[in-house]
Amino acid sequence: MVKNNLNEFEVIRTYFARQPLARPDVVLGIGDDAAVLEVPAGRQLVVSTDLLIAGVHFPENTAPAAIGHKALAVNLSDLAAMGATPAWFTLNLSLPQADPAWLDGFCRGLFALAGTYNVQLVGGDTARGPLTIGIQICGLVPSGQALTRAGARPGDRIYVTGTLGDAALGLLCVQGKIELPAAQRAQVFERLNFPLPRVAAGERLRGLASACIDISDGISADLGHVLEASGVGARIELPRLPVSPAYAGAFATLGWAPALAHGDDYELCFTIPASREPAFRRVSGELGVACSYVGDIEAEPGLRIVDEHGRDYRPPAAGYDHFRADQRS
Amino acid sequence: MVKNNLNEFEVIRTYFARQPLARPDVVLGIGDDAAVLEVPAGRQLVVSTDLLIAGVHFPENTAPAAIGHKALAVNLSDLAAMGATPAWFTLNLSLPQADPAWLDGFCRGLFALAGTYNVQLVGGDTARGPLTIGIQICGLVPSGQALTRAGARPGDRIYVTGTLGDAALGLLCVQGKIELPAAQRAQVFERLNFPLPRVAAGERLRGLASACIDISDGISADLGHVLEASGVGARIELPRLPVSPAYAGAFATLGWAPALAHGDDYELCFTIPASREPAFRRVSGELGVACSYVGDIEAEPGLRIVDEHGRDYRPPAAGYDHFRADQRS
Repeated sequence: MVKNNLNEFEVIRTYFARQPLARPDVVLGIGDDAAVLEVPAGRQLVVSTDLLIAGVHFPENTAPAAIGHKALAVNLSDLAAMGATPAWFTLNLSLPQADPAWLDGFCRGLFALAGTYNVQLVGGDTARGPLTIGIQICGLVPSGQALTRAGARPGDRIYVTGTLGDAALGLLCVQGKIELPAAQRAQVFERLNFPLPRVAAGERLRGLASACIDISDGISADLGHVLEASGVGARIELPRLPVSPAYAGAFATLGWAPALAHGDDYELCFTIPASREPAFRRVSGELGVACSYVGDIEAEPGLRIVDEHGRDYRPPAAGYDHFRADQRS
Repeated sequence: MVKNNLNEFEVIRTYFARQPLARPDVVLGIGDDAAVLEVPAGRQLVVSTDLLIAGVHFPENTAPAAIGHKALAVNLSDLAAMGATPAWFTLNLSLPQADPAWLDGFCRGLFALAGTYNVQLVGGDTARGPLTIGIQICGLVPSGQALTRAGARPGDRIYVTGTLGDAALGLLCVQGKIELPAAQRAQVFERLNFPLPRVAAGERLRGLASACIDISDGISADLGHVLEASGVGARIELPRLPVSPAYAGAFATLGWAPALAHGDDYELCFTIPASREPAFRRVSGELGVACSYVGDIEAEPGLRIVDEHGRDYRPPAAGYDHFRADQRS
């Protein structure tokens, strides 16, 4: 029974229909059987979706504002990886009970980030069940200019935005497995709970990057997807991987594995052909985040990771499998 | 951690990337950070989403093909209510384990219906968790021609497609609360598990219907939304409500309540102004389903339901509230 009544509608009216944003291209928003949206001429629609489950994708006791922020951030990050400009999203929310304090916090985190990126909630569905958040996001890109995983060519340079491994470090702190000074602890918690999607960088990289992906599963896995889609290989150098001062300070405990393979950082990994390096350098100040050169695309398939001594490094973990019983965060 | 690895990707590749449909407007489908889609000039985008949770929206032991069918059908029904033509959808699937037999059945039901309506799966996310299906659907409508809930005016006639109450009757059979002859039992199970969204009817009603909604919560609740959005009232006559022979045969047990208030039928309820009645009658053979005149829009707010003796009828239930503990299917 896909059923509703006034109390479920009250949840929607009280919390979700009150976003302080009204885009002019939303012809009809929340409140009918569907939203009606205007796509301008010369633009293609870019669509992505992500699912977050309590106890799987975030600890059960995560602050509701962080959950609201992160559920949207991971979707915005997918649009950033395509070079798309965010426009609209829908929300499927299953929650154990209609707790006003929780809903208030969740919407605060959700709508704060939505406001930053001018993206409007245009529909959704709520039901009682285990805490699960599904967001589907729509963005726009000038026709033919979407960034994909498939365009990397031998000789292209590989870059990443920001720093890697801070979300992993934040989680290790939450779990009590590592201790940090208070200021650094606050910084890595911020990276874990309130990641900032690199939307401005993605938009600026249109016409410059030959391939782009967001780092949700760790650079080794995600760059691997680019290599596979592009039919190329790569070599990256560990000492070039950008890490934060907090990560560098805990390096003796961490090593390279969390920066390479944990993910959850939502930075972009992209490739720049040599011919576009000068143009890329000219806009690099406008990306909203620093970029680091980490290695090169090569013709030989496979990802080669070399350490500070030039020796092959083998990452300890290949990724995360949602259907294996021994992996839960 | 929004994480993936090869096994999760294998689930996607083996089951979800194999839909036997490739629309020419899908520039980039499953396999990148997002899908890229072409919206033709002169069309508006129509977006809706629905969430189905095992044990809440369908019994836990429902056949996987029925779950796949229904999860998409309820979304197609929302597009039908807008007069939109289905185009693309995304899927968020949380499931307890990657069971090949279950996934195979689910995809069979999902893609059979998707093929019928030419709607392509362009993205999704899977994770391990309680069985929950979130689908977001995108359709297209000629600009300015979407049907909404807001256009009903006094004097408009109220129609419904098909028959009402069969899904309720099917559920009562599943629960062992009512017995039917085998053929009728099969018919109402089909209505419960494999509802057919009235997409062709919705498309044909563009330019004719002044308001339209799909009946997911029962005609009394859903027509109520039309009345509220349109700022009008209505009078419907119980003897005019279309019911199936199975429902009519069990009427002594059922009464009118399941046909009025259970929902889950996914028929359309729409209003036709008197001036468009002749044009509506001309296309009524092309809607793919019979339509029944059930009452009239009136200026006085509120829904008046009268029985076969012309007396006021008061529906026993106002609807379904997902956040009340005493209501679970």
